[in-house]
Amino acid sequence: MISQKYKDMLQAKSVIREMSAWANQRGAEIGYENVFDYSLGNPSVPVPQAFTDKMIELLQTRDVMELHGYSQSQGIPSVRAKFAAYLNKTFGMNYTAEHIFMTTGAAGAVAHAVRAVTQPGDEVITFAPYFPEYHHYVNQTGAVLKVVPADTEQFQIHFGELEKAINSKTMAVLINTPNNPSGTVYSTATLQKLAALLEKKQKEYGHDIFIISDEPYREIVFDGVDAPYVSTFYQNTLSCYSFAKSLSIPGERLGYVAANPKCTDAELISVMCSQISRGIGHNCPPSIIQIAVSEVLGITSDLSVYETNMNLLYQELTALGFTCVKPGGTFYIFPKALEEDSIAFCQKALKYDLVLVPGDSFGCPGYFRMAYCIATEKVERSLAALRQFAKAEYGMPNG
Amino acid sequence: MISQKYKDMLQAKSVIREMSAWANQRGAEIGYENVFDYSLGNPSVPVPQAFTDKMIELLQTRDVMELHGYSQSQGIPSVRAKFAAYLNKTFGMNYTAEHIFMTTGAAGAVAHAVRAVTQPGDEVITFAPYFPEYHHYVNQTGAVLKVVPADTEQFQIHFGELEKAINSKTMAVLINTPNNPSGTVYSTATLQKLAALLEKKQKEYGHDIFIISDEPYREIVFDGVDAPYVSTFYQNTLSCYSFAKSLSIPGERLGYVAANPKCTDAELISVMCSQISRGIGHNCPPSIIQIAVSEVLGITSDLSVYETNMNLLYQELTALGFTCVKPGGTFYIFPKALEEDSIAFCQKALKYDLVLVPGDSFGCPGYFRMAYCIATEKVERSLAALRQFAKAEYGMPNG
Repeated sequence: MISQKYKDMLQAKSVIREMSAWANQRGAEIGYENVFDYSLGNPSVPVPQAFTDKMIELLQTRDVMELHGYSQSQGIPSVRAKFAAYLNKTFGMNYTAEHIFMTTGAAGAVAHAVRAVTQPGDEVITFAPYFPEYHHYVNQTGAVLKVVPADTEQFQIHFGELEKAINSKTMAVLINTPNNPSGTVYSTATLQKLAALLEKKQKEYGHDIFIISDEPYREIVFDGVDAPYVSTFYQNTLSCYSFAKSLSIPGERLGYVAANPKCTDAELISVMCSQISRGIGHNCPPSIIQIAVSEVLGITSDLSVYETNMNLLYQELTALGFTCVKPGGTFYIFPKALEEDSIAFCQKALKYDLVLVPGDSFGCPGYFRMAYCIATEKVERSLAALRQFAKAEYGMPNG
Repeated sequence: MISQKYKDMLQAKSVIREMSAWANQRGAEIGYENVFDYSLGNPSVPVPQAFTDKMIELLQTRDVMELHGYSQSQGIPSVRAKFAAYLNKTFGMNYTAEHIFMTTGAAGAVAHAVRAVTQPGDEVITFAPYFPEYHHYVNQTGAVLKVVPADTEQFQIHFGELEKAINSKTMAVLINTPNNPSGTVYSTATLQKLAALLEKKQKEYGHDIFIISDEPYREIVFDGVDAPYVSTFYQNTLSCYSFAKSLSIPGERLGYVAANPKCTDAELISVMCSQISRGIGHNCPPSIIQIAVSEVLGITSDLSVYETNMNLLYQELTALGFTCVKPGGTFYIFPKALEEDSIAFCQKALKYDLVLVPGDSFGCPGYFRMAYCIATEKVERSLAALRQFAKAEYGMPNG
């Protein structure tokens, strides 16, 4: 019989998608260039030419049986070895190919990682504000996602609330740094404190607690700073990555799970993931994309536009009187709304053709997200609309 | 805690993979060209040049944001519309884009289809001999795979056994025609009889019973005959397809679910599948592959070699005295072993560097599978080994 569970899910609307749909509809009326669409987190800079060139070269020169052949369900061994070597060189790790499991994007990576280290009924903790799809990645495994309230001062971790949330059922903590939607990069101090707390709790409860680290924005970090690599702080870490943002290829669906070589059952995680993939029919990501990406490792799109856009917006927002934590990375900013009801706030913004997403969607009401992966020229034009909105609706003096 | 379920799965060995591993190991000793490796069902003919040319053209000319952009989770709308139109033209159907859900191969298609029309505890029936991964596609959803014994006369459907197996918990029947491993194409008579029985049972039990039709070998049919299109026989049909075999791109992972426009909730199946995909992190298959395949629809690899190989083997096997149903399609043949214990039979064959897979793996002991997706020249050289094996081990007079 038609599954009622998935049928019911159709009733739940995604606010982000509704906002995006509004932007497209409005764009049809007034020209999309005149809609300040900050709704979607899609890369706005092109794929590096090196990737395109490599794809063409592969198609022109590589044996087609090898290029398009069925790979092992863990991924192509030589590709996994290259990714391991790259991570070792970049972050001082000791991965080998056996620690890497290739996935269709970070979504696939997180979904596999959760299944690998939880059983139905277990709890997975995450921190507001968080990517709303985490509910699906976790809850559909039979585990339960538990959300720790936000540290709204800095969008680091509210450790007091975390201590209250952890219990003997906690088997994993799902973090996302650099963070969507806050733009925050977890500091070394935060990660050390998290690691120490989890070490203590592992001993206390007598079982592993994994960090599942969702890191698709790893390379989009500002002020010339590197984001600390989570797995260097805590052995039981599964790093989940996607090339969607760094290479601007979200549609090509390539990512991986990298199991810390010192985590429990480190040599089994990848092969377990391949067992998991048998049941969901995922098997492995496309061969040609695996090979092409492995041959341009270390190259990224020109990501500097995101920092330019962030600075423009941060400057304007703070000048207007918004409370706002300065993003350390990603292409998101997460200011406090000018009224308590951030849904009403975002609705009013639409009158100015400003498409913002209420923080409610990320478990953090009272705030709103702007995804500034759009042309800088458009960001610049949007500033007047922001000023007008803040002044006319909320009487902000600098508007 | 590390999931015991997936850890336990690591203990279960795949006989097909073991046979394949043996072939590779033996190949390292005596040269792989001297191992008659009939173990794996991987296409042996190259991708059509038209696909390669289209990929290069897309990379050289298409806007990269569109080409590599994130598609809707159901798949790229224009691609889905093209697939619908192609199926309509080819099989006289009435699909629209809304009936098509893009997947990563047939594995993803079957796994999504099962989740869409079953709830945990429901039963899904399949027929021996069957593709062993069905256990995972079905059982990991919470439904239960129930195997109906084979019709070893013709490898059509043993309707007497099917009637015994159907009960009020049966929500789907999973069929595979042309069939792996038997090579059989279900006849019009078989499909009509199946449809009539399921119509009757739907009325009797007062609920839908879906046919989930796994059709990756649809184009590999012999004697110039077309395989009947299952969905034309029965409204509640979800057709699951992959381009792996027809285009020889198994590594690129592209397939779809096509919901019969007259099936229950026809307009919901695809959007339900996209809800399912949120939970397993699948999202959508790679954009560039979706687009490239949609622009070469109707073109296939040169599949004629499979018929050539089949005829060589069928002729030799029957001449040697094997009992064997002549395959109507695929690149498999499934003869009766020369002793009851087909595992022992396949073990003995290894002495002659013949790598065969026992029928036990497919729920049909006493038979064995040969995957003849290998070079014709190798098939020809293997015949002497087959003769020698049959004569020396079993005293077959024509050996």
